[in-house]
Amino acid sequence: MFSTITIVGVGLIGGSVGLAAKKRRLVERVHGLGRNADSLERARQCGAIDAAFLDPSAAVADANLVVLCTPVDQIARQALDYGPRCRPGTLLTDAGSTKGTIVSAIEGKLPAGIQFVGSHPLAGSEKRGPDFADADLFQNRWTIVTRTERTDAAALEKICAFWQGLGARVRVMDPAEHDRALALTSHVPHLLAAALAGTLPPEYRELAATGFRDTTRIAAGDPALWTAIFQHNRDGVLAQLALVEENLACYRQALARQDWAAVETLLAQAKKVRDALGS
Amino acid sequence: MFSTITIVGVGLIGGSVGLAAKKRRLVERVHGLGRNADSLERARQCGAIDAAFLDPSAAVADANLVVLCTPVDQIARQALDYGPRCRPGTLLTDAGSTKGTIVSAIEGKLPAGIQFVGSHPLAGSEKRGPDFADADLFQNRWTIVTRTERTDAAALEKICAFWQGLGARVRVMDPAEHDRALALTSHVPHLLAAALAGTLPPEYRELAATGFRDTTRIAAGDPALWTAIFQHNRDGVLAQLALVEENLACYRQALARQDWAAVETLLAQAKKVRDALGS
Repeated sequence: MFSTITIVGVGLIGGSVGLAAKKRRLVERVHGLGRNADSLERARQCGAIDAAFLDPSAAVADANLVVLCTPVDQIARQALDYGPRCRPGTLLTDAGSTKGTIVSAIEGKLPAGIQFVGSHPLAGSEKRGPDFADADLFQNRWTIVTRTERTDAAALEKICAFWQGLGARVRVMDPAEHDRALALTSHVPHLLAAALAGTLPPEYRELAATGFRDTTRIAAGDPALWTAIFQHNRDGVLAQLALVEENLACYRQALARQDWAAVETLLAQAKKVRDALGS
Repeated sequence: MFSTITIVGVGLIGGSVGLAAKKRRLVERVHGLGRNADSLERARQCGAIDAAFLDPSAAVADANLVVLCTPVDQIARQALDYGPRCRPGTLLTDAGSTKGTIVSAIEGKLPAGIQFVGSHPLAGSEKRGPDFADADLFQNRWTIVTRTERTDAAALEKICAFWQGLGARVRVMDPAEHDRALALTSHVPHLLAAALAGTLPPEYRELAATGFRDTTRIAAGDPALWTAIFQHNRDGVLAQLALVEENLACYRQALARQDWAAVETLLAQAKKVRDALGS
């Protein structure tokens, strides 16, 4: 599909892109670009990349596709920095958890012949680093690929085919719609998990069993990464958080007025939604 | 330890008590008492009980220990109903998720020679039924055993030893303190999970990845069971919910005023708590 791809940021996601692309023979050669030589070397040893680069120009010179797997607050800057160092015809995409801010910062600002299409694979975990990379991370998971009025149709098609080649199911969305959806499915859950975890006093820690652990698991995510996500998607997060807080207030009010039928109805509606998601 | 125990309600928890007690040779014989003959027969076939009873008097006649593993709104009534059918010296305990309401409804109301000590093994899941029973469910998990001014010291000691014999670590607490703690570690998480799940519109379902699934997993719990839990522990839940909502408001306000340093500080504090819990 691509003879050489360059992965920028070879952590959990970047490393998994490399492993999956190689396992599925989508690419001949994977270059890894990063700032940390040790981390790059670990990625090379686990087979996620074939060659490690600290120098952007060398890393992208031969690339047909550059995949930016860095924190959301670095992606646009790197795309605009590395794009002009690429050969004409090179595609750029990313794996960032927000899309509106990133896509609008890049669109229309790359040299002719260099196309950027935004992506967001809905995969990953609270873990970090190439040691957690997994060739099957994207298997049967959704990847969202963004389309705007300016998106090149051929580039969009190739990026969709790339993620499908990694095993993912692809859904094409407008960046703003992506951000609204992910605010509810990912960013607000992070806030709830963190607010709950942060309320636990030390003396109750050993009483936190499976339910508490599941509910708060994502609160172990990296604070700096998540702050950047909230910064990018502030409006979407505040809007969806208001809806969840409103729903939570329905529970609180039903409890306060001892309306147990209302509590059970609310719980039954929530269970129906959760059951529909599967395990 | 006990020659015969009777498990009332042979579902996930009751079935696991039976399997664990037999595997660890704590008992010679396990009686199962229930209302559903099919479910009892499944429990017998999987080895959780030796004999199935639909009649309470027959089920408890030979018991040295009766373990009530029924929903919280049935436990006190059953203890008061079955207690007088037991031989003097029989111990009663339970596995209910709330303790204050249950313990105060039972204490002082059993015949002489019949002792009740409240228990709550912090184990289980959103699953139900004996088919999910697990002989190692309590292994290295905490079980809370309650003590009040009226609790018989010898009975308390035996009940603690029983749960330890099943593999659990035991912590003795006052029923009210149990309910305050569990409101935060279990009951409020259930409300948050349900409020979040209930807010998800159908069109976003396929975008709900691991983070959303983890955070909402417990919302799949049985609505009637959970309504009874909230009914028992309404005051504790409202008090702890207020703290979590207050903390959530700190996040919302920091986002609203774009105070990213405050957001990162809050997230870092939450991560520290979550990391301390382990996976």
